[in-house]
Amino acid sequence: MDGHSITMLGTGLIGDFYTNTLQGQRGRDRVRVVYSRSAERGAAFRDRWAIPESTTDLEAAINHPDTDVVVVGLPNFLHEETIALVARAGKAVLCTKPLGRTAEEARRMLDTVERTGIFAGYLEDLCYTPKSLKAVASVRAGAIGAVTWVRSRETHPGPHSAWFWDGRLTGGGAIIDLGCHCIEIIRNFVGKGNRPVEVLCHTDTLVHPIADEDNAVAFIRFESGAIGQFEVSWTFRGGMDLRDEVAGTHGTIWMNHFLRTGFEMFTAGGGSGYIAEKAETSAGWLFPVGDEVSELGYVDMFSDMFDAIDEGRAPQETFYDGYVVNAIMDAAYRSAKAHAWAPVELDWRGRTTPRIASTPETYDGQVVIKRELLPDGRVKLILKDPVSGDFRDRVIEES
Amino acid sequence: MDGHSITMLGTGLIGDFYTNTLQGQRGRDRVRVVYSRSAERGAAFRDRWAIPESTTDLEAAINHPDTDVVVVGLPNFLHEETIALVARAGKAVLCTKPLGRTAEEARRMLDTVERTGIFAGYLEDLCYTPKSLKAVASVRAGAIGAVTWVRSRETHPGPHSAWFWDGRLTGGGAIIDLGCHCIEIIRNFVGKGNRPVEVLCHTDTLVHPIADEDNAVAFIRFESGAIGQFEVSWTFRGGMDLRDEVAGTHGTIWMNHFLRTGFEMFTAGGGSGYIAEKAETSAGWLFPVGDEVSELGYVDMFSDMFDAIDEGRAPQETFYDGYVVNAIMDAAYRSAKAHAWAPVELDWRGRTTPRIASTPETYDGQVVIKRELLPDGRVKLILKDPVSGDFRDRVIEES
Amino acid sequence: MDGHSITMLGTGLIGDFYTNTLQGQRGRDRVRVVYSRSAERGAAFRDRWAIPESTTDLEAAINHPDTDVVVVGLPNFLHEETIALVARAGKAVLCTKPLGRTAEEARRMLDTVERTGIFAGYLEDLCYTPKSLKAVASVRAGAIGAVTWVRSRETHPGPHSAWFWDGRLTGGGAIIDLGCHCIEIIRNFVGKGNRPVEVLCHTDTLVHPIADEDNAVAFIRFESGAIGQFEVSWTFRGGMDLRDEVAGTHGTIWMNHFLRTGFEMFTAGGGSGYIAEKAETSAGWLFPVGDEVSELGYVDMFSDMFDAIDEGRAPQETFYDGYVVNAIMDAAYRSAKAHAWAPVELDWRGRTTPRIASTPETYDGQVVIKRELLPDGRVKLILKDPVSGDFRDRVIEES
Amino acid sequence: MDGHSITMLGTGLIGDFYTNTLQGQRGRDRVRVVYSRSAERGAAFRDRWAIPESTTDLEAAINHPDTDVVVVGLPNFLHEETIALVARAGKAVLCTKPLGRTAEEARRMLDTVERTGIFAGYLEDLCYTPKSLKAVASVRAGAIGAVTWVRSRETHPGPHSAWFWDGRLTGGGAIIDLGCHCIEIIRNFVGKGNRPVEVLCHTDTLVHPIADEDNAVAFIRFESGAIGQFEVSWTFRGGMDLRDEVAGTHGTIWMNHFLRTGFEMFTAGGGSGYIAEKAETSAGWLFPVGDEVSELGYVDMFSDMFDAIDEGRAPQETFYDGYVVNAIMDAAYRSAKAHAWAPVELDWRGRTTPRIASTPETYDGQVVIKRELLPDGRVKLILKDPVSGDFRDRVIEES
Repeated sequence: MDGHSITMLGTGLIGDFYTNTLQGQRGRDRVRVVYSRSAERGAAFRDRWAIPESTTDLEAAINHPDTDVVVVGLPNFLHEETIALVARAGKAVLCTKPLGRTAEEARRMLDTVERTGIFAGYLEDLCYTPKSLKAVASVRAGAIGAVTWVRSRETHPGPHSAWFWDGRLTGGGAIIDLGCHCIEIIRNFVGKGNRPVEVLCHTDTLVHPIADEDNAVAFIRFESGAIGQFEVSWTFRGGMDLRDEVAGTHGTIWMNHFLRTGFEMFTAGGGSGYIAEKAETSAGWLFPVGDEVSELGYVDMFSDMFDAIDEGRAPQETFYDGYVVNAIMDAAYRSAKAHAWAPVELDWRGRTTPRIASTPETYDGQVVIKRELLPDGRVKLILKDPVSGDFRDRVIEES
Repeated sequence: MDGHSITMLGTGLIGDFYTNTLQGQRGRDRVRVVYSRSAERGAAFRDRWAIPESTTDLEAAINHPDTDVVVVGLPNFLHEETIALVARAGKAVLCTKPLGRTAEEARRMLDTVERTGIFAGYLEDLCYTPKSLKAVASVRAGAIGAVTWVRSRETHPGPHSAWFWDGRLTGGGAIIDLGCHCIEIIRNFVGKGNRPVEVLCHTDTLVHPIADEDNAVAFIRFESGAIGQFEVSWTFRGGMDLRDEVAGTHGTIWMNHFLRTGFEMFTAGGGSGYIAEKAETSAGWLFPVGDEVSELGYVDMFSDMFDAIDEGRAPQETFYDGYVVNAIMDAAYRSAKAHAWAPVELDWRGRTTPRIASTPETYDGQVVIKRELLPDGRVKLILKDPVSGDFRDRVIEES
Repeated sequence: MDGHSITMLGTGLIGDFYTNTLQGQRGRDRVRVVYSRSAERGAAFRDRWAIPESTTDLEAAINHPDTDVVVVGLPNFLHEETIALVARAGKAVLCTKPLGRTAEEARRMLDTVERTGIFAGYLEDLCYTPKSLKAVASVRAGAIGAVTWVRSRETHPGPHSAWFWDGRLTGGGAIIDLGCHCIEIIRNFVGKGNRPVEVLCHTDTLVHPIADEDNAVAFIRFESGAIGQFEVSWTFRGGMDLRDEVAGTHGTIWMNHFLRTGFEMFTAGGGSGYIAEKAETSAGWLFPVGDEVSELGYVDMFSDMFDAIDEGRAPQETFYDGYVVNAIMDAAYRSAKAHAWAPVELDWRGRTTPRIASTPETYDGQVVIKRELLPDGRVKLILKDPVSGDFRDRVIEES
Repeated sequence: MDGHSITMLGTGLIGDFYTNTLQGQRGRDRVRVVYSRSAERGAAFRDRWAIPESTTDLEAAINHPDTDVVVVGLPNFLHEETIALVARAGKAVLCTKPLGRTAEEARRMLDTVERTGIFAGYLEDLCYTPKSLKAVASVRAGAIGAVTWVRSRETHPGPHSAWFWDGRLTGGGAIIDLGCHCIEIIRNFVGKGNRPVEVLCHTDTLVHPIADEDNAVAFIRFESGAIGQFEVSWTFRGGMDLRDEVAGTHGTIWMNHFLRTGFEMFTAGGGSGYIAEKAETSAGWLFPVGDEVSELGYVDMFSDMFDAIDEGRAPQETFYDGYVVNAIMDAAYRSAKAHAWAPVELDWRGRTTPRIASTPETYDGQVVIKRELLPDGRVKLILKDPVSGDFRDRVIEES
């Protein structure tokens, strides 16, 4: 089984997660060279993951003769120029989230990869968690009917690296860091062909002495009538909260990806060691996650990306998706600033989606609002008179 | 121990819950007479709860010579005239939620009880759940620092009685039915003296063929900067979802009042009987609640109300609170209609609340953004240069 | 509503729980006098609960002219003589668990109350938790078929008072303290008329420097074939674990009474105050219980006891039940000592219970072992040839 | 990256799980040939997993010139002869659980692989679940102190294939099918060098018309004093229950591997598709598992096995472990039959393990039984007089 040979750009936390995933278990793909601005960090990373080479020369890393795929794990402000370099090298590129700092920037990256025809994947891991993949498949199979509402929440006490806190380098605060995940999760549930129409967002900086938002909540209205709701925070206490909730006309889905996954530990404080990403305590009740790289979606994400390259198809998450996410985040920032709903400005490639609709059942010329099974086996109907608009109860026998 | 003798107005589901609570366990208060528009329903209710009398004469029930407290469990559109009658009778009145169909109506009821000086309690049970009472006490004791965000959610598949569905009689749809609970829960957590400034609400009618909203989501901005978020729906599938989440600068609270309370049952379908309010199924995995009247707050609510009467003090939930809730719901409806943030118009009796604030820690002339304990015992600081605005990491030893 | 006037014996933790329950909410029963060996503790208790009188004279407390019910909340070794005194006074007696230190002692108490004809209730609160009451009712209604197995677990880091640790005063260690709860819970689920036949118990003293067991696990075999399993420990870390699990031929019940009841709090450590009985920490993730006296069964227990007195009927938990529990604990201790199954020696008043049985379904002359619905709608049968004993699969279409 | 080329023996459910794992994600190992007794099932399996060849010739499959590893996924009664064939072929062998039907059979297989020197791995997946691996690592790092008690539970409504139900082919009932998992999980927590001394087991056949046990509970006493407790059933209703609980002197671990892993779905019944292994229903509340092959340990198990082959080391789970598990199951069956504790008869290669012990703290010449932090910051000690054996409380101030 031939695998891919990878150039890894960046040695931060995300580089570790990516490399751990790629080289974990019995994978056939391998990181061949790693780039870091710092020779010291590059060498440490190289040794940590048994990578043949490290370098501080970005272009050399990208153009390394033995690699065919470049993984971009660099700060947001470096994405655009890096992707241009990879496109010039004609290699496949996989870029971490968010794609750009703005939709404009993301759009230019999208144009670059489309113009040069290179394979481009958007590394949105949380759309690939095993729970999400199975849940989305259930939704598509009709298990919960039409999706009416999706809540996606990512909150933790704040990022680990300094550059994340500098909106000039990232494009914003908690929205740009965490909201991008939530938005794309929401899109997967309401349907990627379902146009995001407008956004209402409220942001605030409540705890940290920074210029950008450390808290944000927003509604995204989609063409079908479905509502997406995201909640992001850098001020959450208790670890990292990753939860999604989906409501449909015929069902409900609740997912907890991190703090309550069926693993609970109380320790009086002995022992030591890494508990979980962004855990706040090392004693008392702790909630570790079994296999973080699997639970957070990295394993399935890279499988999809490399399989897509091998099969000559698009991956589940593309640069176009990254661009749409940026466009929604732009609208969120405009909304928060204008203190009003803001339209999503976007070169839309999706379809037109009809509004969620159901044909009301009628009974005896009346509209059936609700039917309830009574303990005695009869059925109680709540009926509406279509002319008067009056409502009344009626209990019937049903066979 | 002398108890109170009660006139119960109304024989719907809420009347059953109220009477079950009042006459449950070893309570010393008793329902003396029950009023229903229907003699048949009145008699059935009387027999069900061993009440001495039932009547179809509203004024006679209110003016019954043996009762000193009137409990109003009637549809919303009857509250105002009923409360006027009780005020005229000079008895204590306890009115179910919502107080009015609009703030204007609620305001007139408030004026009536204040002018006549009768005791008036607002029967907002979900602010009295044992979990909520303990959680609010913990918040006031400082356990989670300053409250930054509260989510309150009440969703189920729709009410049991016809009149609930008729906005002309109720004042609206899911907001007026369920949102009133959420709003007052939120107020208890952010502090009742914390002024609700404005509301952004989105409503839709997605499933039921009615004129009013069957789904609504909203943000309420409070003077402190805290955000309240309510989610109400008459289209939720899976039973009744009652959850509250509170985030603070130093902690977090999650409460599940109904569907996941530590009681889980799988049944292949044998047996029979009442499972839980608004349960949808009677086989498969079910999640009953131990003691519904206790878990839903009715027990503590009536204890507070009658103790308040006995002690000559105001109850936790007053008609003024009911009026504030109506004012916020009015703003929600205006917001949804105007598709914009709407100010809460309100005769405010609370105080002025300062904005959530924290004095940033400094280190070596730099602002400390975050401190993290490293596995080796050292501390990583993320620092911001107050002049340049640049961020950097610094690892230090701490004693 | 006339209530009862109570003599409370004992001012330990259980006395506080009992009095808090009796005088909580809108109860009509009142503690009139409290007895303590220590005048100081008695006075403090009296003031804490607004009780008219305290005394150090046990007989005076029991014979107080204004009380009609005596609640025994004294250490185990004082139960027998106290109950004799109450019997002499001719008052109703409610005695805390365990009834005796041995079945012999319990038997004598049972004889005393039966001979004198006084009302006697066994205060086994955990059989009255709202979840247990509802679960037992579901089981009796057939929701889970025939009960095959019950696990009851009570573990915590050890009792609060010195006398609990002295087996000479209590009759044993964790079994006598906690096992009595578990055994009676198990009996309620398998049916009180289902004779406990024999016990296998393993005990050990693993952590505390005491002579009695701080850990014990046991199986109780009932006449029907059902197995009860109890797990008790004074060495559990993480708070107080109260869980019951019931398996039946048609369903399953899981109950968590304390550590996971839908209330979760993370606190960085600010604030203060009582969290929960036997909580170990006051920071990090905490799991408070809403209303402890309700959730632990005290409210429903006293309602049943006083209602039983008023109605002239036996309560759910009688002295005979307490005697059966002691007989099972005696067997457990004998089993542990003999390292073998030990018969339960008991003056059995229950009925004979037939063995759990089901008539096997047959198909085409073969015994149906299992039927599974296949994704394509067909049914897979696993069949056993009654002659050869061979097993095979067969897939059939069913209408 | 060179992978391994595999002969897969067997096309049942376990063959599907194994092959799904091996060929899932970006694995470098591949199944080259599959053997089935049935040409039809072999061909279907081959096509389902894109395997180059299928055959009905067992020896040909084992001796296939292109494979270096043989995975045995055949019924228990075929293990011994198959392993002899693989040993003769000189290839690495990975055998599904249980190793043998009896310890004697397992011992002969162990001898065979040790005599011929081939690599032999015992495919005990549930010891490799990501949660278990992390939990065992935490225990070894001291997070919960000395392990005192482990509960391992595997229950479901019964196996899918006919041969499982025939004790002549398998060696028993639910113990041989499920108990083998639990026993090895327990051993991993108490320490594999901790000798299993004796077993008390109770079995019964309560629901299915079979000759072997469909329910069993047991205690295993280890040399350290730790107790292992397993609960296995083929009569559980509600799906597949896989839970482990570990108690230690300084902490607690609870793991839920299947029914409550943070993924909850309610569906009114639309849609279709595979929910989860051994799910019982397809509507109402469902609890799917994200990635079953990962959550059930298959991924980490095969990684360990193939890495062990590559690195020339023993895997975590060896044939010796399989033999120990069989020896404990033999003791369980003997115990159930004799209705008494039964010694584990075993050629023990482990070490001697000292008893769990702690040196009691003393205070003022008294033994400290327990210390509790009081709300006022003082500390309450429960002390035991070493001479008289009397216990008393003492409250002290501590700095």
